[in-house]
Amino acid sequence: MADSGPIMTDEGINSLHSTQVIDEHGQAREMSLTGERPLTIYLDKKEIVTLMTMGTQPELLTLGYLRNQGLIQALGDIVAIQVDWDVEAVAVTTRHQQPDIEQILSKRTVTSGCGQGTMFGNVMASLEKVTITCPEFTADTIYQVLDGLAEYNKVYKQAGAVHGCALCSCSGHVNVFVEDVGRHNAVDAISGWMLLNEISGADKVFYTTGRLTSEMVIKVAQMQVPLLLSRSGITEMGLSIAQKMGIGLVARAKGKHFLVFNGLEQYKNKF
Amino acid sequence: MADSGPIMTDEGINSLHSTQVIDEHGQAREMSLTGERPLTIYLDKKEIVTLMTMGTQPELLTLGYLRNQGLIQALGDIVAIQVDWDVEAVAVTTRHQQPDIEQILSKRTVTSGCGQGTMFGNVMASLEKVTITCPEFTADTIYQVLDGLAEYNKVYKQAGAVHGCALCSCSGHVNVFVEDVGRHNAVDAISGWMLLNEISGADKVFYTTGRLTSEMVIKVAQMQVPLLLSRSGITEMGLSIAQKMGIGLVARAKGKHFLVFNGLEQYKNKF
Repeated sequence: MADSGPIMTDEGINSLHSTQVIDEHGQAREMSLTGERPLTIYLDKKEIVTLMTMGTQPELLTLGYLRNQGLIQALGDIVAIQVDWDVEAVAVTTRHQQPDIEQILSKRTVTSGCGQGTMFGNVMASLEKVTITCPEFTADTIYQVLDGLAEYNKVYKQAGAVHGCALCSCSGHVNVFVEDVGRHNAVDAISGWMLLNEISGADKVFYTTGRLTSEMVIKVAQMQVPLLLSRSGITEMGLSIAQKMGIGLVARAKGKHFLVFNGLEQYKNKF
Repeated sequence: MADSGPIMTDEGINSLHSTQVIDEHGQAREMSLTGERPLTIYLDKKEIVTLMTMGTQPELLTLGYLRNQGLIQALGDIVAIQVDWDVEAVAVTTRHQQPDIEQILSKRTVTSGCGQGTMFGNVMASLEKVTITCPEFTADTIYQVLDGLAEYNKVYKQAGAVHGCALCSCSGHVNVFVEDVGRHNAVDAISGWMLLNEISGADKVFYTTGRLTSEMVIKVAQMQVPLLLSRSGITEMGLSIAQKMGIGLVARAKGKHFLVFNGLEQYKNKF
């Protein structure tokens, strides 16, 4: 964290709960369930949004959400991020209020994902300034990242119903891994972590268990990550944005298989 | 459709596109991709939201979205639903404008799902008037529904990256099946179909390939469907709402296996 970083609470919560179920034979079993809690973000006392989250990284989620929606520009803008689960809220204090916050909030885009996400206005426009160069990569690059991630996805293995996202080096070192009930929350929390720790995405690989819809690719582009890897599939618009931005796109990555959707020229078929 | 139903376009589009990829061995393959298009809803010329959708059922999606957000109350309120893909918009004309539309729109809740969905205010409050009674059900009920659905999920099988939702009878007859890039869109379109055709959910089973987060369970409750079946997992809040509303909840339903999370007393273990 930068020396001048914001004052932040540390209110991450363990989000696994146990419940009794019966299987098809009527046999009782104990199951772990993923928790899901509302967290309302107040930016300088103005209510912005209520996110539903597992709550493991509420401060990073808030930071990344505000950044990805264009509601804050730099870490230095923020004085404090204070989560209080008793009131299911996080209060964000900035040095100087955003002049155009009302205008940004007035534009609602409900993106697909597998839910209906919101991206406030002007996000696509801001990408016009971003330059991304997909590096050369090989099957080993992909396998190293997948190997590095093998021990993660813990909550998923226990309870399911979550998505994991990670930021990795090309050699498979996992910089940060976040799970949440929504993959958009997970990518926002990673974005918050990068902003807080002043980490560039330019030499990284972004991994997600979730599908690559337009909004996911946009968020990765905002983080300037040049290579995007998914265990799941992609949509046409996700691909189209990756092509426009020059982001390498590898999907259906599982075990020893994967498909390169964008960056075909950067993919060097060496084992 | 009721005789006095709204004037509606029929602008469903085929959303499969083809693209060339390479696999891990560098071999080229042709892959189908799910399309994803923005559709901006205008309610009496007021911009409400932009949804990202496959576009197979844009009129039903619009109708169900407005209903599930509490922005319209009855089919009779609507004069016309007119989709125009050239401008990526749908114009909805009502008989009399909603008096409290500004108030409803001012409250944003971004739900988890695997995206960040939006539920405008007051939706939970409206559920207090809804009474739901989960019927007795057996393993055969579940298997009949799963068998009935076997031939669906077509787009998923071709291109992945979509979710399917269905409304079925307890004997496995599929009333309606909708796929979309977001499971919230699919459930909204089914809700629109029910409103348009004046179909009650009270004797139905709702099926989804997606996860049962709070928002999904809320939408099924709004449709008054007493039994909810998912191929995927559930979150704690999804379960908690189902318990409160008395909705039977069966998840991880795949092949011959399933787990009953709520409605344990209604489940009769007969094969």
